[in-house]
Amino acid sequence: MLVVHVSVVLGLLAASGWAQPVPNPPGRGQAGRGGLANPPAAVRSPEVAADHRVTFRLLAPKATEVVLTGEFMDGEKSLQKDDKGLWSVTVGPIDPEIYYYNFTIDGVRTIDPGNPNLKTGSTAGTIASVLEVRGDGPAFYDGQSVPHGEIHTHWYGSKSLNTLRRLTVYTPPGYDRNLQRRYPVLYLFHGANADETAWTRLGHVNLILDNLLAADKMKPFVVVMPFGYGVPPGTPPPAAGGGLGDNTAQFSRDLLEDVIPFIQSQYRVYNDRDHRAIAGLSMGGGEALNIGLNHLELFSYVAGFSAALRAGEFEKGFASLVANPQDTNRKLHLLWIGCGNKDSLFAAAKSFSGFLTEKNIKHTFRESTGAHTWINWRRYLNEFAPLLFR
Amino acid sequence: MLVVHVSVVLGLLAASGWAQPVPNPPGRGQAGRGGLANPPAAVRSPEVAADHRVTFRLLAPKATEVVLTGEFMDGEKSLQKDDKGLWSVTVGPIDPEIYYYNFTIDGVRTIDPGNPNLKTGSTAGTIASVLEVRGDGPAFYDGQSVPHGEIHTHWYGSKSLNTLRRLTVYTPPGYDRNLQRRYPVLYLFHGANADETAWTRLGHVNLILDNLLAADKMKPFVVVMPFGYGVPPGTPPPAAGGGLGDNTAQFSRDLLEDVIPFIQSQYRVYNDRDHRAIAGLSMGGGEALNIGLNHLELFSYVAGFSAALRAGEFEKGFASLVANPQDTNRKLHLLWIGCGNKDSLFAAAKSFSGFLTEKNIKHTFRESTGAHTWINWRRYLNEFAPLLFR
Repeated sequence: MLVVHVSVVLGLLAASGWAQPVPNPPGRGQAGRGGLANPPAAVRSPEVAADHRVTFRLLAPKATEVVLTGEFMDGEKSLQKDDKGLWSVTVGPIDPEIYYYNFTIDGVRTIDPGNPNLKTGSTAGTIASVLEVRGDGPAFYDGQSVPHGEIHTHWYGSKSLNTLRRLTVYTPPGYDRNLQRRYPVLYLFHGANADETAWTRLGHVNLILDNLLAADKMKPFVVVMPFGYGVPPGTPPPAAGGGLGDNTAQFSRDLLEDVIPFIQSQYRVYNDRDHRAIAGLSMGGGEALNIGLNHLELFSYVAGFSAALRAGEFEKGFASLVANPQDTNRKLHLLWIGCGNKDSLFAAAKSFSGFLTEKNIKHTFRESTGAHTWINWRRYLNEFAPLLFR
Repeated sequence: MLVVHVSVVLGLLAASGWAQPVPNPPGRGQAGRGGLANPPAAVRSPEVAADHRVTFRLLAPKATEVVLTGEFMDGEKSLQKDDKGLWSVTVGPIDPEIYYYNFTIDGVRTIDPGNPNLKTGSTAGTIASVLEVRGDGPAFYDGQSVPHGEIHTHWYGSKSLNTLRRLTVYTPPGYDRNLQRRYPVLYLFHGANADETAWTRLGHVNLILDNLLAADKMKPFVVVMPFGYGVPPGTPPPAAGGGLGDNTAQFSRDLLEDVIPFIQSQYRVYNDRDHRAIAGLSMGGGEALNIGLNHLELFSYVAGFSAALRAGEFEKGFASLVANPQDTNRKLHLLWIGCGNKDSLFAAAKSFSGFLTEKNIKHTFRESTGAHTWINWRRYLNEFAPLLFR
């Protein structure tokens, strides 16, 4: 089998600052630790072949069972052990994309220890290894030779939650040079088990927008990605009630009383509803819809990607939105709902779209294939961003 | 045993945007995924008790051996299995600090899958879980209620290496408001197996400097943290020669021809040697000493933290530095060498200090306790930063 190492190398490089074919072919030089020993030569895993089949490996002579699960396949696959204790399995071909996967070693679900590219988050449940299968050219989410925006990380004291928090901001290329120019702003939220770094690290928001801007497919705007929890991630549910509703209420206070005023004091953004959008994925999609659609005095573009919605609570949760459809439709420049048809939240999204239709609220319902994954969320952003601030 | 959950919760929060005692005690509300099931209730690991003993746990009924290794102890400890397949071990008391540790499960070195706080890098060899043991008050590296600087991430096209790369910049509090003010600049490098995010994620550089500035213990300056590899991380050594030397040469081109001009075009930094410092750790310490001490026309403050140096190559590598000690001592405002006496690079550091002494080059040799760890590098930064630009 013809093996193309460069796919794996590039996946690794994308995670570490190298993002395009580099002039240093493997074998040219050593990036060593000087006097320190390098880590033991790792088994190559994952390895992507020219035909996009992928081989996963683990050296584990003492293990009795190693199983692979991943977003690129249904179910699970067992790895096979050779006489040196090297486990392996080949799957695919796999379409070019970024996928998460796990090894379960003797019953313990963990990462692929040979792969430095990890998905991390705010809780342990979604730790995974990252497989990047590259196509012939760069993907819409890849770093390319175009003008680049900046990513800023701020620490700020949240008065409403009495805590120190972080938020991430994307400024488009040229923001620092056009000092008289003001920009529209998108508030963009991550999902559960993630944090304020998720949209840049996993979502490639900056690269997607850099590429759209270079192709003149969208208007430039600032993106604000706050930490989306109002209560600590992983907090156990209270004995009675509470849950996501309380989280949204707490997060809403931080957003409206702390984040937005902070952004308006630090960035040259417009402060009117016509230049303000709100969107999020999963838990953050529920937050964006609940906060945005109940605050049309603040937001005129609203989106939920695979949003966490509670079917059966729409009448109560969106009473003001549907009270006067004509007024709502006049104010809402865009209401965009996207969900994959294999997503466990698909029924709720479809039900919400039906509710909006029944109430004569104009909206876009984007049914896609796929499940509750970043594959869809990157694509939704790529479709949604060009619709903003037109 | 009295168990204080808050320490573990705070460790988790620090990684995810919560960084100080929060008004939401555990149990107040659920941060759920809406229609999606939460990840399975994780075993609590690590759990820090009031007396700073720490219990590590893993649910693994099918495993036959689970071993703990960590920076807080020498050697390794076996976890013990109960009749439900829950493995555990208690160690300590452990001094308040941030430590890395691993589980080895049936011979496979991996992370603690119950702990979301992970150390990641550019190669797989140093993936680890993070234990944070908190003292009675905030540490010098903790986020506190003081003015905060910003962290910026830039993508830039490196002409010298013909690749797209990232770099990280710290601007001190007030940088965006004092538009007439120019700032000195520190170029700060990570070690092998890491990347341009290491000094902020693992080193807490922004929080350390925020705290020093709030205590009026240092002058404000900009910190530039480039991606420190000149060749791809993990590149195998060539058949003959090469190695770190070639890496430093390639990295030096990127630094001098691309990074410094980029920073000077984007930031209000002074562009003279008196206002420019260069420092790094391990591989990056070798780079800082090699580049800085051979370019005194560009840098006047130079530091190596646990630097990767090759004893026996000093005469050749630093010939121009020692040719005229009087001239060198006049130009060098500070040459600072720090290393822990348990570090495998300690002998090289001591040898380099001896070489400098023999050649009458003024310098500070800071011998500390400890090994080749971030514990020392955070402390060195905290000691070194106040000495700059006085």
